[in-house]
Amino acid sequence: MNILLKNIHAITCDGNHEVLYNTNIGISDGNIVFVSDQEKDIRQFQADRIINGKDKLAMPGLVNAHTHCSMTLLRNFANDLALHDWLYNHVFPAEAKLDQEDIYWGAMLGIAEMIRTGTTTFADMYLFMDGVAQAVCQTGIRADLSFSPLKFVVGKPIDETHLCRTYHRDWNDKADGRIKVSVEIHSAYLYDEQSLKNAAALAKELKTGIQIHILETERERVETIEKYGITPVELCDRCGIFDVPVIAAHCVHLSDSDMALIKSKNVSVVHNPTSNLKLGSGIARIPEMLERGINVALGTDGAASNNNLDMFDEINLAALIHKGANMNPILINADEAVRMATVNGAKAIGYEDRLGTIKQGMKADLILLDIDQPHFYPLNDPIAAVAYAAHGLDVDTVIVDGNILMEGKELKIMDLDLVKHKVKEISKRITNES
Amino acid sequence: MNILLKNIHAITCDGNHEVLYNTNIGISDGNIVFVSDQEKDIRQFQADRIINGKDKLAMPGLVNAHTHCSMTLLRNFANDLALHDWLYNHVFPAEAKLDQEDIYWGAMLGIAEMIRTGTTTFADMYLFMDGVAQAVCQTGIRADLSFSPLKFVVGKPIDETHLCRTYHRDWNDKADGRIKVSVEIHSAYLYDEQSLKNAAALAKELKTGIQIHILETERERVETIEKYGITPVELCDRCGIFDVPVIAAHCVHLSDSDMALIKSKNVSVVHNPTSNLKLGSGIARIPEMLERGINVALGTDGAASNNNLDMFDEINLAALIHKGANMNPILINADEAVRMATVNGAKAIGYEDRLGTIKQGMKADLILLDIDQPHFYPLNDPIAAVAYAAHGLDVDTVIVDGNILMEGKELKIMDLDLVKHKVKEISKRITNES
Repeated sequence: MNILLKNIHAITCDGNHEVLYNTNIGISDGNIVFVSDQEKDIRQFQADRIINGKDKLAMPGLVNAHTHCSMTLLRNFANDLALHDWLYNHVFPAEAKLDQEDIYWGAMLGIAEMIRTGTTTFADMYLFMDGVAQAVCQTGIRADLSFSPLKFVVGKPIDETHLCRTYHRDWNDKADGRIKVSVEIHSAYLYDEQSLKNAAALAKELKTGIQIHILETERERVETIEKYGITPVELCDRCGIFDVPVIAAHCVHLSDSDMALIKSKNVSVVHNPTSNLKLGSGIARIPEMLERGINVALGTDGAASNNNLDMFDEINLAALIHKGANMNPILINADEAVRMATVNGAKAIGYEDRLGTIKQGMKADLILLDIDQPHFYPLNDPIAAVAYAAHGLDVDTVIVDGNILMEGKELKIMDLDLVKHKVKEISKRITNES
Repeated sequence: MNILLKNIHAITCDGNHEVLYNTNIGISDGNIVFVSDQEKDIRQFQADRIINGKDKLAMPGLVNAHTHCSMTLLRNFANDLALHDWLYNHVFPAEAKLDQEDIYWGAMLGIAEMIRTGTTTFADMYLFMDGVAQAVCQTGIRADLSFSPLKFVVGKPIDETHLCRTYHRDWNDKADGRIKVSVEIHSAYLYDEQSLKNAAALAKELKTGIQIHILETERERVETIEKYGITPVELCDRCGIFDVPVIAAHCVHLSDSDMALIKSKNVSVVHNPTSNLKLGSGIARIPEMLERGINVALGTDGAASNNNLDMFDEINLAALIHKGANMNPILINADEAVRMATVNGAKAIGYEDRLGTIKQGMKADLILLDIDQPHFYPLNDPIAAVAYAAHGLDVDTVIVDGNILMEGKELKIMDLDLVKHKVKEISKRITNES
């Protein structure tokens, strides 16, 4: 289908001209074929659909570079608790009751929320990942889905390397290329050294990347140094993890030398400000990472520690908290925060050649914000408006791979009433703590 | 008019039973006349309007306890700058071009946004306050409007005590009692000692309270100690400021003894997390203030340093940033954060007897959230949902003083298109920096 976005303002996230006013965007066969204010480009384009850009602001679809999508099932459950209490007495017991079908419904809900709030690609790690892949297939969203070669059951890890290979064979590059499969390593602290090496070797064998949690807590740092005499980052490096592309979530407690290593190995860091704040993990040293040239993306983490999957909240927090914590109002400007959720996210999942910017030749993954609302008047600086005034609920239209998944704030991709019904049933079952 | 909210979940913010499920709320003559699940209470109530509570969550209307409403005119203007550069090179020159009519239109826009996002009462300090009072009158919102006895023109302050008296006479208790007038003292650093004493005396004479900025920046602390040998809080106390009810905005840099003084004088503190972060002012020691029993409310500050007037963002930040900054996930729980925006705000403006809770005998200032959206499934804990998952745009219906100001997300109180048009014109004029 050919879609023309006509006479629209656009934040391109493309280095040369960040904001275009009253431009036109042509979409054909899933790709952006032109971005132009020239009448001739519009005239020679055969549009099947014309979307009027009046009172809309286009920007690249957001990349949620670290989440556990199906944890929507645990939303608003067990809040304001100490981390260990939260995990061991609430989250783990509830998760132990989940099965493949539950995960599918949780993923459907998470995808509904992500599309509703402007996320077009997400990187995920969780249980029963077939359920997530099915939901991605059906809904039209894009995802980097990681599968763990180790399954953790109380007491001992079980090797599931063979299932990881199967998952990769079944889903990688499927759904018209919208699914990428990578290897999940939960964390250096849950793996022994040999398992870390095996997982790295598996990622190399599958020619894919790794998603891992690194240094979410100070405790991980202390315990890894006690056990190995080196930091978790150094341990990952020693085990070959960084020899493949890595998405490292959290990185709240990096030392200077950890940062240098992460930079030299081209590891992408995912900043999850809401989750890090809510769980009391701390505030990652993001301004220093950006200063060093590390690629920093943004993520929501799971809804259990957030409690939503709204990437606009993460953009907002990324632009705010470092200024406040460091008492310096020029740290992480609006543009940098927006890029963390777009170009940097695309780069983290290895798709900077096709996602994260609005320009000719890129995939048509983009979102339109409804800016005809009081909080967008006066608009002045559209990038500041996105970073400081906008919310996910401002998103009006979502296009992924050239397909319109939401328009006029109406999801077109699922029977949402059925999803809500199923989720309520599952939630009731798993959170009944008696 | 008699309104019945039927079969609705409600966060009451009333100490005894925080969340009521499937309750009914009767509103008559601007007051809440019952909150009940008893069939007889409903049967004997003659409702002119019945609002179906299905998929809605009621809570007290939010109190924005510190803002400069008309600064919406400067939204998204001059971001990510050092404080002095921002104020002196951008904000002040733009403000110098404002007149009474501009302020009115800016207030109309700010009120549109506040109602849209669930604020039913705001405390304001700015220029040309007649324009703000007119907008409050017309729209039906409730406000505590402060008027400064000193006008600051480059070089010297001009005494306008007489105008402050006039403003109080003209507007206090007007608009069916929806307007309260108090005295603005911009700050201890812009006033000399005698002017502080005069302003305190004026507030006493008018039998009203004071709105003041205190210790937004570290610099205020250092300079006041240099000049007077005491802290700004001690200076305020010495000048009699705290002998009347005071709303002290920011309070980012309070010492332990400042906190003790503020507690002993029953000063209400307004936490403005977004603004304090964005301007790099720092993170106020709110958990310690709450621990000491200080009344802490929430505010957005002006849209120039926020960049919206969405109190749900402030609730969310209040619940998040102290956990993160102190690496302690049990600081400021969801309930405390919600209370800061409701009961504590009501207390700050001296209206705890009529606002901030949903119970019989209170004014009918309440809001209904649309919880039939993906990010509210599963609901689990409604208070956690409000603090961690909700946004202002979730607000569906707003009732102030028993009048429905918004329903189905449609504002009923102004010609919004005209307001937007006027604001665009004004913005163009004042932000043209050439």
